[in-house]
Amino acid sequence: MKTTLHTFEPAHFHTTIGWHEPVLRIRSGDVIRTWTVDSGGYDLDGNDITEGGNPQTGPFYVVGAEPGDTLRVHFSRIRPNRTRGVSGALVAPNVVDPYFVRELGERTGEDWWVLDLERGTARLEDPPKGLESLGELPLDPMLGCFGVAPPRGQAISCATSGEHGGNMDYRGFREGVKVDFPVFAEGGLFHLGDGHAIQGDGEIVGTGIEVSMDVEFSLELLKDKTIGWPRAEDDTYVMAVGNARPLDQAVQHATTELLKLLQEDYGLDYRAGSALAGQFIRYDVGNVFDPAYTLVAKIEKALLKRL
Amino acid sequence: MKTTLHTFEPAHFHTTIGWHEPVLRIRSGDVIRTWTVDSGGYDLDGNDITEGGNPQTGPFYVVGAEPGDTLRVHFSRIRPNRTRGVSGALVAPNVVDPYFVRELGERTGEDWWVLDLERGTARLEDPPKGLESLGELPLDPMLGCFGVAPPRGQAISCATSGEHGGNMDYRGFREGVKVDFPVFAEGGLFHLGDGHAIQGDGEIVGTGIEVSMDVEFSLELLKDKTIGWPRAEDDTYVMAVGNARPLDQAVQHATTELLKLLQEDYGLDYRAGSALAGQFIRYDVGNVFDPAYTLVAKIEKALLKRL
Amino acid sequence: MKTTLHTFEPAHFHTTIGWHEPVLRIRSGDVIRTWTVDSGGYDLDGNDITEGGNPQTGPFYVVGAEPGDTLRVHFSRIRPNRTRGVSGALVAPNVVDPYFVRELGERTGEDWWVLDLERGTARLEDPPKGLESLGELPLDPMLGCFGVAPPRGQAISCATSGEHGGNMDYRGFREGVKVDFPVFAEGGLFHLGDGHAIQGDGEIVGTGIEVSMDVEFSLELLKDKTIGWPRAEDDTYVMAVGNARPLDQAVQHATTELLKLLQEDYGLDYRAGSALAGQFIRYDVGNVFDPAYTLVAKIEKALLKRL
Amino acid sequence: MKTTLHTFEPAHFHTTIGWHEPVLRIRSGDVIRTWTVDSGGYDLDGNDITEGGNPQTGPFYVVGAEPGDTLRVHFSRIRPNRTRGVSGALVAPNVVDPYFVRELGERTGEDWWVLDLERGTARLEDPPKGLESLGELPLDPMLGCFGVAPPRGQAISCATSGEHGGNMDYRGFREGVKVDFPVFAEGGLFHLGDGHAIQGDGEIVGTGIEVSMDVEFSLELLKDKTIGWPRAEDDTYVMAVGNARPLDQAVQHATTELLKLLQEDYGLDYRAGSALAGQFIRYDVGNVFDPAYTLVAKIEKALLKRL
Repeated sequence: MKTTLHTFEPAHFHTTIGWHEPVLRIRSGDVIRTWTVDSGGYDLDGNDITEGGNPQTGPFYVVGAEPGDTLRVHFSRIRPNRTRGVSGALVAPNVVDPYFVRELGERTGEDWWVLDLERGTARLEDPPKGLESLGELPLDPMLGCFGVAPPRGQAISCATSGEHGGNMDYRGFREGVKVDFPVFAEGGLFHLGDGHAIQGDGEIVGTGIEVSMDVEFSLELLKDKTIGWPRAEDDTYVMAVGNARPLDQAVQHATTELLKLLQEDYGLDYRAGSALAGQFIRYDVGNVFDPAYTLVAKIEKALLKRL
Repeated sequence: MKTTLHTFEPAHFHTTIGWHEPVLRIRSGDVIRTWTVDSGGYDLDGNDITEGGNPQTGPFYVVGAEPGDTLRVHFSRIRPNRTRGVSGALVAPNVVDPYFVRELGERTGEDWWVLDLERGTARLEDPPKGLESLGELPLDPMLGCFGVAPPRGQAISCATSGEHGGNMDYRGFREGVKVDFPVFAEGGLFHLGDGHAIQGDGEIVGTGIEVSMDVEFSLELLKDKTIGWPRAEDDTYVMAVGNARPLDQAVQHATTELLKLLQEDYGLDYRAGSALAGQFIRYDVGNVFDPAYTLVAKIEKALLKRL
Repeated sequence: MKTTLHTFEPAHFHTTIGWHEPVLRIRSGDVIRTWTVDSGGYDLDGNDITEGGNPQTGPFYVVGAEPGDTLRVHFSRIRPNRTRGVSGALVAPNVVDPYFVRELGERTGEDWWVLDLERGTARLEDPPKGLESLGELPLDPMLGCFGVAPPRGQAISCATSGEHGGNMDYRGFREGVKVDFPVFAEGGLFHLGDGHAIQGDGEIVGTGIEVSMDVEFSLELLKDKTIGWPRAEDDTYVMAVGNARPLDQAVQHATTELLKLLQEDYGLDYRAGSALAGQFIRYDVGNVFDPAYTLVAKIEKALLKRL
Repeated sequence: MKTTLHTFEPAHFHTTIGWHEPVLRIRSGDVIRTWTVDSGGYDLDGNDITEGGNPQTGPFYVVGAEPGDTLRVHFSRIRPNRTRGVSGALVAPNVVDPYFVRELGERTGEDWWVLDLERGTARLEDPPKGLESLGELPLDPMLGCFGVAPPRGQAISCATSGEHGGNMDYRGFREGVKVDFPVFAEGGLFHLGDGHAIQGDGEIVGTGIEVSMDVEFSLELLKDKTIGWPRAEDDTYVMAVGNARPLDQAVQHATTELLKLLQEDYGLDYRAGSALAGQFIRYDVGNVFDPAYTLVAKIEKALLKRL
């Protein structure tokens, strides 16, 4: 089947992920080339064109997608489209010991970063004392917030995440990754935004290096495949994502979903899945800042190829 | 100062880490060559020589160590000393969704692994259905449980962990690592045990590949250096360790301790530490099985060398 | 100012709390007499008239209510309007130890209760073995799910709760209580439903005795009063409500809000509020079943009258 | 069998609960009249006679008590024996929202209370501004920390709690209560201390009104009765106690133990126990301050008498 390349210019944005009016209807396999504003609503020219709060481009409607299906997004390109990004200046109080919040000081201001898009690096524009010689760091662009319309007609704030994806802020969601979502609404209704030029594990200052992005991705409909939580795949790993607080519950969601993935896609019952995951599972911390935390459970594809 | 190499043959073991009678008094910098039984109390010949529960070799007394100091262990050698190890057969109920516990089935039996010490590999002796072709996997030996006597004269079960270390079950604690502990008792009283030939993140089947070990390590006294939680260093990272439930609290302990480490060892105030950690911190999940979970916060040494 | 009594017959219901089309516009102080279906969508005749999931009557629009205001609901009447209710048959797996889920058995069926509305009692229709002589228990009717439209245009499932209220499942929300909500949308947009004839702390079988209700309440606009979380008052206590997981975070929300309440309404700075709350605070567990748990912090009004 | 009344004058104290040398050996049913210092180590004359940290009187050895048995303590008298108590001055940072810690201010000083032992009241000696007219409040004396030697030879700090009891800080543990503990060490080895003249739910300022106490209690051996967590009984309720962090896990421990209690003592299988507990369980928050939190699940005895 021939796929189409759509170039989409967003004109308005949503700060919830929900059952919003689609901006484009596409067929499974089609590719979309578009862009996203940064988390504050600023575009590639640094203009404040929409209200902040991880404003989303979309939603995109995939013809034929229905509840019970899976929608796979494949990000073929995630690139900053301007030369300045911004990050939070102080570790968030919820990720340090409660008594230590007093010692940490007040959060004031922010850090600006200069991005060199040709060389693929970022450097602090005005480094805090002690970091003057930190220099240039390699970009590792990713999207913090994307997903599909949640169940039951909900519209959920782009500050948080759930089974539908959302503000997962996981730095593994970079160019090349494929992420699967359970479909809850007709058409799936895929939204995307909140680009980070670089982000640490946990997003502990409440941001990555926030920047607007040029994004290219395809949407593929996996008909009648039903999943419980987002799943993903990159060159090295298959992954399952849990979004919840506390982090312990995110661990439970992700581990359960990974055991199901191993069963469904690799024929391993839970006994065999346990033997494999027990000694070879890897956990990544997505974010420990947002209302729901994100934890990723993953297994090397090289191991699975042996089976 | 000349250091001494001690060869120590353990004759009895402790299943708590506490203010026990030292088995050897050494000077700071001395090296100890010894061995540990596996978590069940079995030695290199597969003999059940002591009660199970992560029995510890030691404790070792370092002359001059006092509360307020730091004790640094450097593991120069951690090697399985027998050719058979054992692991749990089913993912633990606390790491999956509560409803899923019923689907997971009952935990029965265990998995035995054949270790090839020359080639440095492990393979399942009797693979569950679906894993027949998994084959040989590279060993990555580590110690699950070690630490110093805890504060206030406590004796704490080797099932759990705390500021004093203990059953952290972190696969990053492998040969070559240096781990620092706060000293709470005179002499520090260092204990060690619970070797794993391989272990996944989280120790989610409740075990790694449990095996007895030959271990060589030095103990170095850092006089008047006071830390709050274990810190560590390997070739690539400096690390801070948080041990607690929920995992969120372990995140808080580890992140706080890493910010203090950056301040004390690299002169970064919390503002600068935040700017650095915000975009470059990495979190590793030690265990999510034991009564206290273990979370490691770390930063690349290559970044710190720029400062 | 004269207030109006509105009698409202609901014709459709929402299973999210959101920025839905108001069914009625009223003035501050007006009284509404209406009814709610039960959590499964069954009405007073036992007819299944709408999809389940705590379907809500409303929303009601209060003229003049704007973000930054507070909306006070006063429930003057909450009475079951049929003689049969239903409850979950087995404790939910998330409220028992993970290992114990296997011993608990499978959840099958449900318990039906016969309500005697004149005598104000409930009894099990077909008691499980061992409860044959339990007999009649006094009704204690309450509403499990009610609240106002959440911030940022969200529509949030009636399975869960937040700053806007929602599925709090707190048995203290019975006839006579006044509950205050922060206004996020114009008009406030008050929704209500999910009646329970009786409910235990925690709602640990996932339900109370679910029943349709006749409800009478007033809505009062507290102009320019801004609160962070729901607050409440009955004859004995003033209360602050936290909705979150884990329960520890609900404790944090509720305690913080109570300290603010003591400051704003009783002139106690946090130092004085601490001295009082430290020795006299009471905590109630609303629910530990829903996606967000509910914890209520409260202080006796008799103590506050002394000040 | 004749029981003996022992009058015991403590001469030294333990700040861990452990396998310490017994101070007295008694028979099951014997009564002990003794006293405890306050949490800081101060006695009835206000003299600082031992190091602080909830120093314990005991341990008491009950002849015949062995692992697998249950030890029941019945407190027939818990009375402050001096006229001054002290409490923490500021709510602890872990019980408020992380961002709010900065607004809360610094913890400085403490509150002193004057106790009128004849009238049974307490009043603030130097009330913070706003509490000048708070006046006299009724005493409700209780013990915060008591229990038996923990398993595996452990010695556990009196700051925390576990299956063995310890620093539960539950205000329901007042005069008249019976509390059952699993026996882990020969003789049980019962310790007690940490009296509070009054304490709020959660012990959120980190203390109750700390005071030394005169205590009279009996120890009864329930041979071959095995329990998992402390259980208790007062005039109105039977109870099960969970000690853990997060509070969610304490809920799990307590609820599981209560279902077992209903099965063992009242013949209700988990299905019937669920039907009863689902609508009639009550939860009390012991403490949310200590390293392990305490949550109590309870059922009215009046309901159980119907069965």
